[in-house]
Amino acid sequence: MVASAAMSASASTVSSEPEWRRCSLEELRALAAAALRHAGVPETAAAIVASALVEAEARGIESHGLRLLPSYVARIKAGGVNAAAEPRVVREGPAVALMDGQNGLGPLVATRAMEVAIAKARAAGIGACAAFHSNHYGAACCYALLACRQGLIGLATTNSVAAVVPPGGREGRVGNTATAYAVPTEKEPPLVLDISMSTAARSRFLLHAERGLPLPEGWAIDAEGRPTTDARAGLGGYLLPLGSPTAGHKGFGLAMLMDVLAGALSGARFGIELQRLAEDDPRAIGLGHFLLAIDPAWFGDPGEFRRKIDRMIRDVRATPTQPGVARVYAPGERSHARWLEAQAAGIAVPRSLLARITQLAAA
Amino acid sequence: MVASAAMSASASTVSSEPEWRRCSLEELRALAAAALRHAGVPETAAAIVASALVEAEARGIESHGLRLLPSYVARIKAGGVNAAAEPRVVREGPAVALMDGQNGLGPLVATRAMEVAIAKARAAGIGACAAFHSNHYGAACCYALLACRQGLIGLATTNSVAAVVPPGGREGRVGNTATAYAVPTEKEPPLVLDISMSTAARSRFLLHAERGLPLPEGWAIDAEGRPTTDARAGLGGYLLPLGSPTAGHKGFGLAMLMDVLAGALSGARFGIELQRLAEDDPRAIGLGHFLLAIDPAWFGDPGEFRRKIDRMIRDVRATPTQPGVARVYAPGERSHARWLEAQAAGIAVPRSLLARITQLAAA
Repeated sequence: MVASAAMSASASTVSSEPEWRRCSLEELRALAAAALRHAGVPETAAAIVASALVEAEARGIESHGLRLLPSYVARIKAGGVNAAAEPRVVREGPAVALMDGQNGLGPLVATRAMEVAIAKARAAGIGACAAFHSNHYGAACCYALLACRQGLIGLATTNSVAAVVPPGGREGRVGNTATAYAVPTEKEPPLVLDISMSTAARSRFLLHAERGLPLPEGWAIDAEGRPTTDARAGLGGYLLPLGSPTAGHKGFGLAMLMDVLAGALSGARFGIELQRLAEDDPRAIGLGHFLLAIDPAWFGDPGEFRRKIDRMIRDVRATPTQPGVARVYAPGERSHARWLEAQAAGIAVPRSLLARITQLAAA
Repeated sequence: MVASAAMSASASTVSSEPEWRRCSLEELRALAAAALRHAGVPETAAAIVASALVEAEARGIESHGLRLLPSYVARIKAGGVNAAAEPRVVREGPAVALMDGQNGLGPLVATRAMEVAIAKARAAGIGACAAFHSNHYGAACCYALLACRQGLIGLATTNSVAAVVPPGGREGRVGNTATAYAVPTEKEPPLVLDISMSTAARSRFLLHAERGLPLPEGWAIDAEGRPTTDARAGLGGYLLPLGSPTAGHKGFGLAMLMDVLAGALSGARFGIELQRLAEDDPRAIGLGHFLLAIDPAWFGDPGEFRRKIDRMIRDVRATPTQPGVARVYAPGERSHARWLEAQAAGIAVPRSLLARITQLAAA
């Protein structure tokens, strides 16, 4: 995510060119919500999903921002996603809940599930909600930040189609499990990490392929299982786990944990059951999510906790740099700066994407 | 951990040579406990710590096994660790607790904290215990496995001296946070991952240095902050985070999360406050841990959950292999096989280490 943000850093400087148009976040949320409502999504749900997509866009995670909207709508039109879903808790304990996503849009299900996790955490110190029968949830940080904005530590994970190979393997066995945490601070930007458990995501392979650039080592294998630096060959193959080539067991093992929680524990599909569906496939994919919140107030003074996180962040920023490096950034610092800028000045969005969404809102 | 296990794979085949002696786990536990009691550790606590060290040894994690015992005893003798500690809960909620480790040995504190987390999880679905005023806890998997053996998902993490650099930095800002999870199964070995958040641990640098081997890229920087493949230069420098060189922000961000939970949340020292102490330093280091347990029974049928994990494991093992790779292993599979072998046939332990511990038990 961080990288995909960095790669599109030029967007805000080219807004005067005809292929981009600068829009306010409010305008984008209204447009996205209108497109969703037009596809049959009820008003509140449409606003929630639109907000998540625009927030991802505003944080510089374009790969999980507005460009997802047309595929979300296509999945609804194909019957693969239920526009009218109202996710509900079907089982619960003092600190946990199980949610039936009713095959709703992922951002709706994940938002509802995090709301439950937050309520549980406030009451019990820690709270978790596992959701099944859901769909692609966009950018994981959106849900972790829901908890963070209320002073809680938030963690969000999901499973997804089996795209990551175990070390030594040549077929995907676990999803690339988009996972994020967010930790509240007093004065610093929140501490936020939003990552997948492969070295790099497929969206980055695509970018390298478009630009004719080779992939770094440790990113991909080709369809025959050979490590490759050819971006197109990587797109036809699978993702290598974080830590490859010498420590890929770490990234693969972490991805499995996310699938255990979001998949096996939630009652969703998991592991190799999750295979890519075409946009027009009428079947439900059956993804799961796992949302966790921790309320620092149960462990001590929450203000003191936030000030400690401030200190951690400042110490990271103040790290002496390696030769040739200008400065060190704390996790979440750059995407927060983009988010502030987006709130003040809007975001430059490709006109082609705006036209597509406008069409969906009116069609 | 997995790697350090692999590197000592020859141990069991050289037990007839004079420098090794094969010992039963029972014998080793008794010997280690005697050494601890002799240093003033009460009987129950000594048995708990001895068990954890022998379990690490039996699972092939020698770097976190019996060889830690002499340093644990040295820390007690220096006054830096409290032999008589009785960790106790000082604050709690329905699903969380805060534990004062009373500067006790880490394996004792972590065991007590996981016992609390398990009890909370049974009552509330998920449970967490954060511990402060603790010490080096050895192998993280020992505590995750406590939960797993009772049918729960266990997760254990700790902070440690700031040894991992942020991407672009040239000084450690966060500990190498030994972290493990364990997930119960029906017929397969438990799904277990025990890792640090650097690409490789210092113990592996040492091994490469001893053997005159270069380090792989992405493992280390030297004291001047330059990436290095020289093992001795790496030992004088810092650890690079998991995912380096292209995705080090992922490993660093994960290490920060572990320090947030085990350090900032628990009230322990954290971040750059944690600097290496000499064995004979009389000061307490003030580490923290975070133990988490999840009871699958609150989410559905626990037997069905375990059978799903069996299936995930079998699917990973059955992954078609990359050219030249004999087979794929599931996380925890090899260490479980070693543990079974160790239970049946004992472990080959260096005679020098046995002599040292025997001396401590009698001194």
